[in-house]
Amino acid sequence: VVCRGLYRALCIREKYMKKSLQRFPKTPSQFLRNIEGAVWRADECCAPVFTPPVKKDEDPFQMDNLPLDLTYCIRMKGGVVYVYGDTAAASRGDPMDLSYPNLEDFLDDMNFLLALMAQGPVKTYAHRRLKFLSSKFTVHEMLNEMEELRELKNNPHRDFYNCRKVDTHIHAAACMNQKHLLRFIKKSYRVDAARVVYDAKGKKLTLKQLFQQLSLHPYDLTVDSLDVHAGRQTFQRFDKFNDKYNPVGASELRDLYLKTENAIDGEYFATIIKEVGSDLEDAKYQYAEPRLSIYGRSPEEWARLASWFNRHRVYSPNMKWMIQVPRIYDVFRAKNFLPNFGKMLENIFVPIFEATVRPQANKELSVFLRHITGFDSVDDESKHSGHMFSTKSPKPDKWSHEKNPSYSYYLYYMYANVAVLNSLRRERGMNTFLFRPHCGEAGAITHLLAAFMTADNISHGLNLKKSPVLQYLYFLTQIPIAMSPLSNNSLFLEYAKNPLLDLHQKGLMVSLSTDDPMQFHFTKEPLMEEYAIAAQVFKLSTCDMCELARNSVLQCGLSHEEKTKFLGENYREEGPQGNDIRKTNVAQIRMAYRYETWCYELNLIAEGLKTTE
Amino acid sequence: VVCRGLYRALCIREKYMKKSLQRFPKTPSQFLRNIEGAVWRADECCAPVFTPPVKKDEDPFQMDNLPLDLTYCIRMKGGVVYVYGDTAAASRGDPMDLSYPNLEDFLDDMNFLLALMAQGPVKTYAHRRLKFLSSKFTVHEMLNEMEELRELKNNPHRDFYNCRKVDTHIHAAACMNQKHLLRFIKKSYRVDAARVVYDAKGKKLTLKQLFQQLSLHPYDLTVDSLDVHAGRQTFQRFDKFNDKYNPVGASELRDLYLKTENAIDGEYFATIIKEVGSDLEDAKYQYAEPRLSIYGRSPEEWARLASWFNRHRVYSPNMKWMIQVPRIYDVFRAKNFLPNFGKMLENIFVPIFEATVRPQANKELSVFLRHITGFDSVDDESKHSGHMFSTKSPKPDKWSHEKNPSYSYYLYYMYANVAVLNSLRRERGMNTFLFRPHCGEAGAITHLLAAFMTADNISHGLNLKKSPVLQYLYFLTQIPIAMSPLSNNSLFLEYAKNPLLDLHQKGLMVSLSTDDPMQFHFTKEPLMEEYAIAAQVFKLSTCDMCELARNSVLQCGLSHEEKTKFLGENYREEGPQGNDIRKTNVAQIRMAYRYETWCYELNLIAEGLKTTE
Repeated sequence: VVCRGLYRALCIREKYMKKSLQRFPKTPSQFLRNIEGAVWRADECCAPVFTPPVKKDEDPFQMDNLPLDLTYCIRMKGGVVYVYGDTAAASRGDPMDLSYPNLEDFLDDMNFLLALMAQGPVKTYAHRRLKFLSSKFTVHEMLNEMEELRELKNNPHRDFYNCRKVDTHIHAAACMNQKHLLRFIKKSYRVDAARVVYDAKGKKLTLKQLFQQLSLHPYDLTVDSLDVHAGRQTFQRFDKFNDKYNPVGASELRDLYLKTENAIDGEYFATIIKEVGSDLEDAKYQYAEPRLSIYGRSPEEWARLASWFNRHRVYSPNMKWMIQVPRIYDVFRAKNFLPNFGKMLENIFVPIFEATVRPQANKELSVFLRHITGFDSVDDESKHSGHMFSTKSPKPDKWSHEKNPSYSYYLYYMYANVAVLNSLRRERGMNTFLFRPHCGEAGAITHLLAAFMTADNISHGLNLKKSPVLQYLYFLTQIPIAMSPLSNNSLFLEYAKNPLLDLHQKGLMVSLSTDDPMQFHFTKEPLMEEYAIAAQVFKLSTCDMCELARNSVLQCGLSHEEKTKFLGENYREEGPQGNDIRKTNVAQIRMAYRYETWCYELNLIAEGLKTTE
Repeated sequence: VVCRGLYRALCIREKYMKKSLQRFPKTPSQFLRNIEGAVWRADECCAPVFTPPVKKDEDPFQMDNLPLDLTYCIRMKGGVVYVYGDTAAASRGDPMDLSYPNLEDFLDDMNFLLALMAQGPVKTYAHRRLKFLSSKFTVHEMLNEMEELRELKNNPHRDFYNCRKVDTHIHAAACMNQKHLLRFIKKSYRVDAARVVYDAKGKKLTLKQLFQQLSLHPYDLTVDSLDVHAGRQTFQRFDKFNDKYNPVGASELRDLYLKTENAIDGEYFATIIKEVGSDLEDAKYQYAEPRLSIYGRSPEEWARLASWFNRHRVYSPNMKWMIQVPRIYDVFRAKNFLPNFGKMLENIFVPIFEATVRPQANKELSVFLRHITGFDSVDDESKHSGHMFSTKSPKPDKWSHEKNPSYSYYLYYMYANVAVLNSLRRERGMNTFLFRPHCGEAGAITHLLAAFMTADNISHGLNLKKSPVLQYLYFLTQIPIAMSPLSNNSLFLEYAKNPLLDLHQKGLMVSLSTDDPMQFHFTKEPLMEEYAIAAQVFKLSTCDMCELARNSVLQCGLSHEEKTKFLGENYREEGPQGNDIRKTNVAQIRMAYRYETWCYELNLIAEGLKTTE
């Protein structure tokens, strides 16, 4: 029974990943086909399409190579965008053949998984397997640690410092450290004091006047008065933490320095991000995936963000962009900015569909989308919504009351639209997107269940601690998890209690990320600081650290070409075959151990199913 | 009875500090005089003499301003150097009036303190006072944390980043990080492959030949193969840790890159140290006190070290030098390099006395000594010597068996000679030295007792955990402790269990230091890494961090002029008066709290003595 449950859970994730052109690893797919007595075919593999890296002498903002406009017609229906061949088809209600989701099936699957998570025998099984995985790794370490080290020592020219590592979870608005922001503010004042930079309800202010109005002089500013760093006060207080985005507690400064829309068209924000990018280029082996916000408050947001991106040429070869959507419908609704949740989804997704169908008419946005690799869903997960996603939940266009929908509801509708979008974009030969929500930082464990069905990978995942079944499923499907223990340490969980080490030992696919260097980090290299502290506190070996770095490259939205360069030609193979130690500095012994262990667990399920038959 | 014991303990330390021109704070001195019904006079204060900073356009290696030679005569007697007016006085056995120690008094005092440490009521008293101090700090924090923060926010232009901080404990041979050493080795090979750099028992080798002989090519070298980083293997294994000083496990490379005496006269070592120095100068607010070794194996060591220092002009305004003496008499004796322990002491101290008396005849050494600020005593403290220092212990010149003397024996004879040397050097208008041994990293708690009597300040102090009486005495006398939790984490104690936070909260004078960046740190700024990790793991506030930084400046061997510049004019005052928040960024509320608490505890002793009378 247990194995049948797990088998079906794996099938569920496989289905939703394929449908949305997200990743599901080959090995469990093969096992599933095997169980079904079917033959696994290599072309079953579904893979996202990433934009290849910008070539030398190529302009990342080039607009003359965009595809032609089509006459397709776009309508949102029940919170999901439908694409029609033309207006006639639209009025007939006859959409094109794209991977539209089926809400009822989804809810059925979700309810099945919910029941599975709660089943005693499944819990026991998962718990025991996880415990076994832990102990097995300890044994592996004791036996093979020196062997692993020897492999790495004999691996010429590659060490942890020149392994590629990606900061898989970082917010653009906090991607600089506090000292960097302080220096930038001081510099801007030296250069730009007389420039009109702020529009206070029609009253134009120069930078000097703005600081006078705040009774501040930039020369006196310090990181203390800037006060953007998370301290002891923010623990368990996400609300206080959000206020830390306001330098000196002044939203004016946040608007001026950390926003894309303001009286100077977000020039300072663009400059500071480009500085971070050029620091990464100098460091050479470090990459980052900063998130920019789309709120869904108005349909023009996309055009404005794209225009900011193009105008300031916010590009660095060491950065891949993501879009984060804050789950704050309730805030907008309370202020009457939106009539219902459906409108928010429309504002978020219709413009991208438009740009996908008619790139020539949406040139800036189309260029911008080329650089986007995924979507993130963000907000304080510990807030309880009081809503339970079920067949009785109102459809988004009927969701007009002030309460926020639940996390699962948000995730389903984001996923559904991304899935349709991806199938359309693949048809058009464009890059596709991954769905990579914040998940399991706090709140109910159902969040992790929703992400299991919808997300290519997640950020945080702390709450996997609390559900052995989900943890085991995340292991079996190797869902990447970008963890940020320093961020957690300031917000939700003390460093030493962070499950990172435990999950890594068990063999879950974990990477390290900074979340918000502005708030959490002290040094000039936040990602290195993150690795260094983890290495020190958890006593990680070089092999562990290089494995985390390799995971981060696999998890991220870097293109196939870049991954090939950073990880080796066969990086898409699973197990030791896929590892090129000369590039990754991960010992083959480690890779073999991980692969064997994974296959062993999958095989147990297959065996379990055989005996019941 | 308890208070009488503590009172006498304080008097003992005061006596030995005064005698050796080391520091004893004003506040407890005033309390002691008060208890005695005597009047405290400001001129009672004894202070070490540090060399003022090198002025602009002044040559740090200038030799023409050295004092004239004297005809004094120097003889070592019973392990202590005696100075005589001339040879006649020497043969009469009539030494000059300098602060020679009295071994019997010392042993009496030591035995008194040993008994005190073991007395039940004293232990209870100290334990309760310490517990009170802990709780009091927690209350202080809850009440005043936001006030402290407000003070710091209103403090213009100064924050943690531009507070001066000193790396109070770092070994020159490991002062660069592993990546730096690796880069340096690769660079040296590119430039110097054809240069003769090594002398293998008469056979001269070029750099290329040397690497060929080791079957290595520097291009392939990585931090993994370099293998100088402490890992999990070194925990509780000081022996393995010492081997980590050999890059690629090859002592040839240690000789070439990390030693002052070799076929290239230590040129590479000097260059790499100067690079570290110039990194510190670039960082501007960071200073370091690297230790160079004098072994006492031969009397020429000093001349050779001084010549290395002068030849390569190893100078940086951001570095102050110290001499470390490894406690390895037993090793030398076993190899028959030394006839007895007295000879080792002679080799260590007589050359400096000579240079002090006859600077013109020892120009290089005299210049070198100008840059030295103190002595350190180093080795694995967990090795047990099996010897108990008492009146029955043989004198150093009689100590000819192969066993190593005990830690206390070492400390007494180093202290004794430093005390005489200091009084001679002050007479001559020269700089004096502090005694700053490694102490309490491991081993018996008597080590901490010996340091209480002899040392201006110590490194490590972990074992203060184990003796409430000593911990309380270290608090009352505010003995600075340079702690290195990252080093401890790799060697003796897990990070989260480090007593740093506890001692800091109780109000002991703690600073942060790196010990060996080559072995322990990952980033380019090891001291910042040390602070960052402590801040994250222990959740230190900005005020805590700035207090640690201030402590490090007070503890270190920077000159009066520099300390005035970095801490403010009144830095020698104790309590809030001595703090200039504009320079230190430590809140006055914090300073007032610390001072009140200190005085309260001292006053308790005074009161206790009154009631018994």
